[in-house]
Amino acid sequence: MINIGMPSQSNTPSHDVADAPIGVFDSGIGGLTVVEALRRVLPLERILYIGDTARVPYGGKSAETVIRYSREISEHLIGEGAKLIVVACNTASALAVSILAPMIDVPLIGVLEPGASAAVKATKNKRIGVIGTKATIGSFAYEKAIRTLDSEITVSSAACPLLVPLIEEGLYEDDVTSVILRRYLEPMLANGIDTLVLGCTHYPLLKRTIQLICGPEVTLVDSAENCALAVRELLASQTHHRDIPRSIHLDTPRLDIVLTDSSEGFLRVAEKSLDLTIDSLSFRQIGK
Amino acid sequence: MINIGMPSQSNTPSHDVADAPIGVFDSGIGGLTVVEALRRVLPLERILYIGDTARVPYGGKSAETVIRYSREISEHLIGEGAKLIVVACNTASALAVSILAPMIDVPLIGVLEPGASAAVKATKNKRIGVIGTKATIGSFAYEKAIRTLDSEITVSSAACPLLVPLIEEGLYEDDVTSVILRRYLEPMLANGIDTLVLGCTHYPLLKRTIQLICGPEVTLVDSAENCALAVRELLASQTHHRDIPRSIHLDTPRLDIVLTDSSEGFLRVAEKSLDLTIDSLSFRQIGK
Repeated sequence: MINIGMPSQSNTPSHDVADAPIGVFDSGIGGLTVVEALRRVLPLERILYIGDTARVPYGGKSAETVIRYSREISEHLIGEGAKLIVVACNTASALAVSILAPMIDVPLIGVLEPGASAAVKATKNKRIGVIGTKATIGSFAYEKAIRTLDSEITVSSAACPLLVPLIEEGLYEDDVTSVILRRYLEPMLANGIDTLVLGCTHYPLLKRTIQLICGPEVTLVDSAENCALAVRELLASQTHHRDIPRSIHLDTPRLDIVLTDSSEGFLRVAEKSLDLTIDSLSFRQIGK
Repeated sequence: MINIGMPSQSNTPSHDVADAPIGVFDSGIGGLTVVEALRRVLPLERILYIGDTARVPYGGKSAETVIRYSREISEHLIGEGAKLIVVACNTASALAVSILAPMIDVPLIGVLEPGASAAVKATKNKRIGVIGTKATIGSFAYEKAIRTLDSEITVSSAACPLLVPLIEEGLYEDDVTSVILRRYLEPMLANGIDTLVLGCTHYPLLKRTIQLICGPEVTLVDSAENCALAVRELLASQTHHRDIPRSIHLDTPRLDIVLTDSSEGFLRVAEKSLDLTIDSLSFRQIGK
């Protein structure tokens, strides 16, 4: 059930920091895969999600523009009382997190470092593949993060600009998607990778098809899952998480969503593909 | 040869209105097909083009957002001295032209009316097909424009959200593009259309493949071409066009381009697919 209106997490002074929401943002719908993972890993947390659907996608845009958009949204989330911000977008994680983190007052967690770290743990033959948007792959951020952890690892990467549009059309198991995926993946498979990082929050929706093409011997690393675990670890270290029984809290866990433009595809993915319950959905203009 | 810098059409008072530039805008690169048509039809005009690459694409966004973006860019073009604004984007033409036209001081010409009018002239069996973005098709603007001209015409339409990403990847003659195009076009062809409106300024780049699928008996109506003819007609009626020999003018015709974000694909299309000479290219933040 979705209520269209203003999000109600006004973060009144009577709440302590554990009650403050986790702020999550993405250029659009992809970050919902991170919300779904957060929901599983931290079932009691309140989540405030911003999808920048008025300016989606980020993946083909410049670093300067992606940093500007990410800063505007982070400031908005802090204004809404977020205790921590999850950059649930690989492009923004690759281009903006290291620049924004020192500028803002709450911890900022991207999807990139947790994904890179999980891939390094998973690989046995030290050959990792990474797929992502043009901006993510062009930044070499995964290569840098992986090789900082283990300089002996060889990284093959491929920008996959058509996957997001195909996913947004719901063509998860379509022949066309398979043909396009094969083109992107075959050079990496020829390099003998045993681990593939799904370096875009949209891609977990294609996991089945990607696993079929790669074969069972390739481990797929889902950045959503690993990011959620990193968030839990950080909150535990800060004792800001809801580790006490739910019944003690006056508020139930909530998922409030703010979009910068209406988006039909957004709701379809949220409800059908990810089975998320949305407590409120509202539209707001963010940024200059 | 491209000079990166500020556009030089400062429109100093010594220039008369004939010297003022034609302002053209699109969400991104698609409007260059209109610039190419304007260049052929009005070779002496100065053109100032704005591509809103920081917020591209418009085709999946709401009317409210597309109107806001179009207003911000139109105001910017008027500030630059544009004597006329060409909305070289079907989505913005469908959603914003009728609302913005009464609000601004210079004539505003979209691509939609000229395309609809050319299709009505071209059809013999009174069955017209229209392809476009989700926003364009969802607005029913082509249907309305065509049936206002001739209420006996049957219009079949299809939203084709994957074509712009495929074109922006340069896959003009790729098998995948053909498969996707067939899915979009076959229901319309089954309806017996003899005329197909390419209702998105990107689509002329797929003309060859579309004509192959439709067969020679279907007339393709290119909105770029017809829009350029409508601009010439309007300028002639206002005697604002450069109908005197070029040698009399101090300035040579120019094409100045402003993008709201850097865009590699933009230049590839401008230079390779359309063979346009760009006199200056600059980047500016437009809008709030």
